[in-house]
Amino acid sequence: MPALPVTLKDIQSAAAAINGAVVRTPTRHSRTLSAIAGCEVWLKFENRQFTASFKERGALNFLLSLNADQRKRGVAAMSAGNHAQGVAYHAGRLSIPATIVMPVSTPFNKVKHTRDFGADVILEGRDLTEASAVAHRLAAERGLTFIHPYDDSKVIAGQGTLALEMLEDVPQLECLMVPVGGGGLISGVAIAAKAIKPGIEIFGAETELYPAMAESLHGQPQAEKPSAQTIAEGIAVKRPGKLTTEIAKALVNDILLVGEAEIEHALVMILEIEKTVIEGAAAAAFAALLADPARFKGKKVGVVISGGNIDMRLLSNVILRELTREGRILTLELAIEDRPGMLAQVAQLVGEAGGNILEVSHNRMMSGISAKSATLILVIEARDSAHGVQIREKLAAAGFRLV
Amino acid sequence: MPALPVTLKDIQSAAAAINGAVVRTPTRHSRTLSAIAGCEVWLKFENRQFTASFKERGALNFLLSLNADQRKRGVAAMSAGNHAQGVAYHAGRLSIPATIVMPVSTPFNKVKHTRDFGADVILEGRDLTEASAVAHRLAAERGLTFIHPYDDSKVIAGQGTLALEMLEDVPQLECLMVPVGGGGLISGVAIAAKAIKPGIEIFGAETELYPAMAESLHGQPQAEKPSAQTIAEGIAVKRPGKLTTEIAKALVNDILLVGEAEIEHALVMILEIEKTVIEGAAAAAFAALLADPARFKGKKVGVVISGGNIDMRLLSNVILRELTREGRILTLELAIEDRPGMLAQVAQLVGEAGGNILEVSHNRMMSGISAKSATLILVIEARDSAHGVQIREKLAAAGFRLV
Repeated sequence: MPALPVTLKDIQSAAAAINGAVVRTPTRHSRTLSAIAGCEVWLKFENRQFTASFKERGALNFLLSLNADQRKRGVAAMSAGNHAQGVAYHAGRLSIPATIVMPVSTPFNKVKHTRDFGADVILEGRDLTEASAVAHRLAAERGLTFIHPYDDSKVIAGQGTLALEMLEDVPQLECLMVPVGGGGLISGVAIAAKAIKPGIEIFGAETELYPAMAESLHGQPQAEKPSAQTIAEGIAVKRPGKLTTEIAKALVNDILLVGEAEIEHALVMILEIEKTVIEGAAAAAFAALLADPARFKGKKVGVVISGGNIDMRLLSNVILRELTREGRILTLELAIEDRPGMLAQVAQLVGEAGGNILEVSHNRMMSGISAKSATLILVIEARDSAHGVQIREKLAAAGFRLV
Repeated sequence: MPALPVTLKDIQSAAAAINGAVVRTPTRHSRTLSAIAGCEVWLKFENRQFTASFKERGALNFLLSLNADQRKRGVAAMSAGNHAQGVAYHAGRLSIPATIVMPVSTPFNKVKHTRDFGADVILEGRDLTEASAVAHRLAAERGLTFIHPYDDSKVIAGQGTLALEMLEDVPQLECLMVPVGGGGLISGVAIAAKAIKPGIEIFGAETELYPAMAESLHGQPQAEKPSAQTIAEGIAVKRPGKLTTEIAKALVNDILLVGEAEIEHALVMILEIEKTVIEGAAAAAFAALLADPARFKGKKVGVVISGGNIDMRLLSNVILRELTREGRILTLELAIEDRPGMLAQVAQLVGEAGGNILEVSHNRMMSGISAKSATLILVIEARDSAHGVQIREKLAAAGFRLV
């Protein structure tokens, strides 16, 4: 095997360099998540970083490697989110000018946070590829040093520092599960962890909408997928790095793919049980454990909760979707006669059954029903799906036709 | 001053008794919340307890004080939430039978969690007063020991243990801010903290819908208020305890009242900044700091994040309400002509202005508009309130009439 571009020593040097300027986050066992997943689950809380993601580690390690002239000229980066905040925050702290290019579609809160750290934010490009081209052009024109979000040995070494902490805190870990976008995090983690504990298994988690690293590892053809909306925007990367692919091929045991609904489910579960806000990419890692329980049964697994930056409206939406999926929020359509008192009767039956009515609407325009009929649409909150069935049955028993 | 019914020694004994069976939660400084509040804010994360609230401390200290016969017969408690879970969890661990009475309106998730710990849950009573009567009656009939949620010296001593931890971790604290319902928590905290550090100031936070302890302290007439819905259900208590009122009168510096909107604002702020889920009662404590900034300016304040149990649908709703209040979600009503192409034109203008349309509805039934007109109602997501104004102006400039 040829020597890899990053070594344990690089990662240990990075740890010494960034020490004190990033948060030494805890790795905690979760009793309830372990019971649910059927293995022993430890969570590494990188959402506790000041900018709420592990990206600070790599960004800071890179910034600290610049010479005086490079520092003075400044840096450029392209990122829709966490890398931007990591670069902007530490560049600001170190008084290094930072220019951050973000695609025009970047969520509002991420733009605002990055600007608040003092960076010059340029919204340009319809997607990450276009924004990246802009950032490279600006860097060349203005003599700025470009900080790649993942395909850089200093960045990879920085991200790897979190694995040193995990194995220091929980040396008995047998597997690590890491979210994978461009591959910077899993590369650093794999180098550090396998050097310290050669028998440890390293797994990555990707959303099935962006399976690029999995396809590289499995030797599948890499036709570039169309862009797709995912809740795990932090790992929505079409093409992983060159360095990171080389490292992953050498050291990563497998990459698991998870669906959007599984990611949403994992996100709300961790929110409700662990009382902690995580972003989609982090949820993908826990979702991957649930997706293949036989593989991890009884093992000691460290899951990297990579970050906690999620738009509040998206979070609210994900919670409601999850409650709907669980049957705690259900939509009923009833064919009713269009006359006074009908809604009162239905509402009373639902109330007696212990259902809470959230929304009511009527549809009188459907073909297939009489002009003297209407469809009543109710959104109802129930205790659980069994309770939802009870509410349906109560309405049916009273003679209402559920369509 | 007469001797108080609980002493520092009682609290130290409680700490020794419960040690290892409850989580030694961290007290962490928050840089961002400090900047917002204008004082130095430390948070005590009691939402990290296994049942996600401080109530375990008092419940466990009480359970450990029972003799063999009392343990065998079992305990009864009345609670709509956290006390129930604290009692049920530790009684289950210690193999003590527990009967918990909850009002029929108790949120589903709290009933489920309590049952999952093995307790016998009885849903009876329209409110806490009625449920309490049921629990006392059952305790008498069945020979069970009743565990009061706050007006008990063992419970108060247990709650006080968290103040020992706060002052051990952050001895420089000058004030503590504690949510107040029945007063068990603030009583224990005040006794422990003032015994260790006599100069420390103890403040309580109540929702203005349930200001009973504030009225007691301020010597105001205590007409019992009507029941009201509050997001801070953990501190929705009409009448504080006898012991707790005596202790609060002796040791608490002041009780501050906060409104529902302020509590919701604080809750979403801590969710978004600290990435941690807190319940309404805990949010009330941070809201109280924001309500009277002059009083706390520059001081070192420890805020007790008392718990993290909030119904997920309620959380989702609170987030959306907060975004609406901030102007990030706005509702526009436009008078339009009722003809093809109108919605396309409006939608294009909103899109060009950078607004994201969340919901669309039409109203054609209003009096005061022509039969050939309609009101178009749009719910739109904007970056912030200034951006909302820009979207309005763009529509007005294109000739649309905003009603």
